[in-house]
Amino acid sequence: MATKPAIPKGTRDFSPEEMAKRNYIFDTISEVFHLFGFQQIETPAMENLSTLMGKYGEEGDKLLFKVLNSGDFLSGVTDEELSARNTNKLASMLCEKGLRYDLTVPFARFVVMHRNEIGFPFKRYQIQPVWRADRPQKGRYREFYQCDADVVGSDSLLNEVELLQLMDEVYSRFGIRVAIKLNNRKILSGIAEVIGEPEKIVDITVAIDKLDKIGLEKVNEELREKGISEKAVAMLQPIILLEGSNREKLATLKNVLVDSDTGLKGVSELEYILDHLEPSPLRSALEIDLTLARGLNYYTGAIVEVKALDVQIGSITGGGRYDNLTGVFGMPGVSGVGISFGADRIFDVLNQLDLYPKDSLSATQIMFVNFGEKEQSICMEHAFRLRRCGIRTEIYPEAAKMKKQMGYADSKKIPYVALVGENEIAAGKITVKNMTTGEQQMLTVSELADFLK
Amino acid sequence: MATKPAIPKGTRDFSPEEMAKRNYIFDTISEVFHLFGFQQIETPAMENLSTLMGKYGEEGDKLLFKVLNSGDFLSGVTDEELSARNTNKLASMLCEKGLRYDLTVPFARFVVMHRNEIGFPFKRYQIQPVWRADRPQKGRYREFYQCDADVVGSDSLLNEVELLQLMDEVYSRFGIRVAIKLNNRKILSGIAEVIGEPEKIVDITVAIDKLDKIGLEKVNEELREKGISEKAVAMLQPIILLEGSNREKLATLKNVLVDSDTGLKGVSELEYILDHLEPSPLRSALEIDLTLARGLNYYTGAIVEVKALDVQIGSITGGGRYDNLTGVFGMPGVSGVGISFGADRIFDVLNQLDLYPKDSLSATQIMFVNFGEKEQSICMEHAFRLRRCGIRTEIYPEAAKMKKQMGYADSKKIPYVALVGENEIAAGKITVKNMTTGEQQMLTVSELADFLK
Repeated sequence: MATKPAIPKGTRDFSPEEMAKRNYIFDTISEVFHLFGFQQIETPAMENLSTLMGKYGEEGDKLLFKVLNSGDFLSGVTDEELSARNTNKLASMLCEKGLRYDLTVPFARFVVMHRNEIGFPFKRYQIQPVWRADRPQKGRYREFYQCDADVVGSDSLLNEVELLQLMDEVYSRFGIRVAIKLNNRKILSGIAEVIGEPEKIVDITVAIDKLDKIGLEKVNEELREKGISEKAVAMLQPIILLEGSNREKLATLKNVLVDSDTGLKGVSELEYILDHLEPSPLRSALEIDLTLARGLNYYTGAIVEVKALDVQIGSITGGGRYDNLTGVFGMPGVSGVGISFGADRIFDVLNQLDLYPKDSLSATQIMFVNFGEKEQSICMEHAFRLRRCGIRTEIYPEAAKMKKQMGYADSKKIPYVALVGENEIAAGKITVKNMTTGEQQMLTVSELADFLK
Repeated sequence: MATKPAIPKGTRDFSPEEMAKRNYIFDTISEVFHLFGFQQIETPAMENLSTLMGKYGEEGDKLLFKVLNSGDFLSGVTDEELSARNTNKLASMLCEKGLRYDLTVPFARFVVMHRNEIGFPFKRYQIQPVWRADRPQKGRYREFYQCDADVVGSDSLLNEVELLQLMDEVYSRFGIRVAIKLNNRKILSGIAEVIGEPEKIVDITVAIDKLDKIGLEKVNEELREKGISEKAVAMLQPIILLEGSNREKLATLKNVLVDSDTGLKGVSELEYILDHLEPSPLRSALEIDLTLARGLNYYTGAIVEVKALDVQIGSITGGGRYDNLTGVFGMPGVSGVGISFGADRIFDVLNQLDLYPKDSLSATQIMFVNFGEKEQSICMEHAFRLRRCGIRTEIYPEAAKMKKQMGYADSKKIPYVALVGENEIAAGKITVKNMTTGEQQMLTVSELADFLK
């Protein structure tokens, strides 16, 4: 009868230690979100497929997990439809609901459904799992958490400035050294406009991104191979070689983009951001980087990305400004700007750099060894008093062998063990053993509480 | 093109205010869990259906949400099988995975899969949503959170004692007055044994439960109607009329159960619990209540339930001791004791009694009104300094009409608004307005930080 249990591929269990680390990450980020006035919402794991389908492209539709209708799921399906075996069509007849694929579409749906209860600008954050039927591979899961913050209903660039400050605060609290890369979709559009190659903007950014690796000659070669005219390649030279301070880069761009209103608008948006960060500079390096081309179908203004400096890993946070979040649900004109923290990657970075604060694991602080009924009763009173003082306390629940009890304390990384035997009872004290150094001292329960606080 | 969005029936969105309240509930409970040495785990939303099926009875199997296989979900299904339209059989061919129905089966699966990494006794807690294709109705949802704590791998009754202390601590922190009801499965078995009616234990508890409402005569009548012999009804009289202190009840039960080893074992287990709670009594009333008959198929020892005293609502916490958590997954001999907090009901109780601490909503503490570019820049520096002091601060992102800005602060229940105009800039100060009283004062930014801390 017994089945050997397993979990679906691409999913994970989280152990107590992993949970403590994840909680540290989410608590830190949440606290900073609140510091900037963001409020949390949650949406259901299941959305109607009518809400989800067509929002992530054809590939995305395929990656949606669909939930079989309850009851007689075949009732509305004819024999002909069954034997036709059109899986797409049948899936939509068998399933009304699907698991959320990201937090953006549910958020858009939320804004539209609750438009009359929400005050705008609406600053929301959301930390929930999403599901994708992707092929699982190292670092890619079928269930993973997203952690998003957005301001919608405000065009002010102050929001961009504050989101940069927010990211800076988060990484400063983590102790992760990062570079924050900043671009603007309007500048990319302006470049495409000026050189007359509006379709080639991705090819251009991909090529420019290789400058450090392959050098200017090869970059130009690649551009030509992608069908970009000799004239356009020539006009791109100052952009490929763009360097210097952020202000210097903007000055160059102003010259190149002098004939594109859109491009100049992008430059002035970046200027605004730099101006407003100046009085209280970020602790992280902020770098204008034209090769940043994430979400080009989606973003309309600022594009931002965060890279860890001391670990080789992709972007650990990204975001940007978008128009028309909710148009697809019949509510036009809602623009916004948002960012998304990559929790799994931050987890890895903190692990690799060993940056988790020792006290972040909120584990048990002291364990009473159990010597038997009589001693246990005394220990229970001590434990009761320590817990009243907020000390995380355990009593080993039975008088097991000393080795077993100490092994338990060890495996839970409990830093102190309390020993209460005859001598201690007579003296009204507790022997406290430091599990790292082996040092022991005898304390009263209130001394012990003070000691552990 | 635009579809009017909705969410699946029986599911909910959580607004910022609801989230803040839920976070207060889960944070409070989690903190107490940690105080007693429990550690958090999480398991995936999707489990293999082979893990879930057959664990919740036939009815439960029907209430599982099943997830359609990705890709060509019809590939292994013949035309005959399709046209046979056996939905149960087809569902198992179309779906390998389902959404978790509770936290107990995934926990059992977790213990078996990670038996070599876990130290026993294993004290785990888990706070995650579960899904059931129940018919939605008031207070019953298709997605809801469960909040469970269990100790497995220890038979010690100390665990029962500590779980009672833990519940007492949680409700004391909430400020909810409760009665904790305690029973023991072994006593119920003993009663059934003594009166020779082992099959009727549920009928008996249901009848006894009506004593206050319908009186002794009618209770006895109901017992007879259920087919309980005259002799058995006579033997049940001291149990139906059981009253007095917990100790008095136990004394009566000892007499009645003198011929049942199992029953006496149950009495002595309750005695142990009372003895060990005596030195540090619970703040809540603890009451032995033989009508408590939850989970009789499952529980083997203590059965516990918490009732709110000031709100008419069902049980808000329940639990008990069980044997053989993991036998069905091929790992025998793992007994444990666990409790489950009913988050939705606790939410309602705290709402009805208005017990949410004012500062539990971690909302924005102060908002700077935006008078335009020049003033905004000064406000940004102030906001920067306040946030560095941990003050949750917003600046309205654009120079909108005063009424709109104040309306925003109002709708977010922001208690203070900061006004920085020409006078304030000249004086290097900030006018702070209390949004409740209308009172105003002029402060420097560091005075303001102290004031808001």
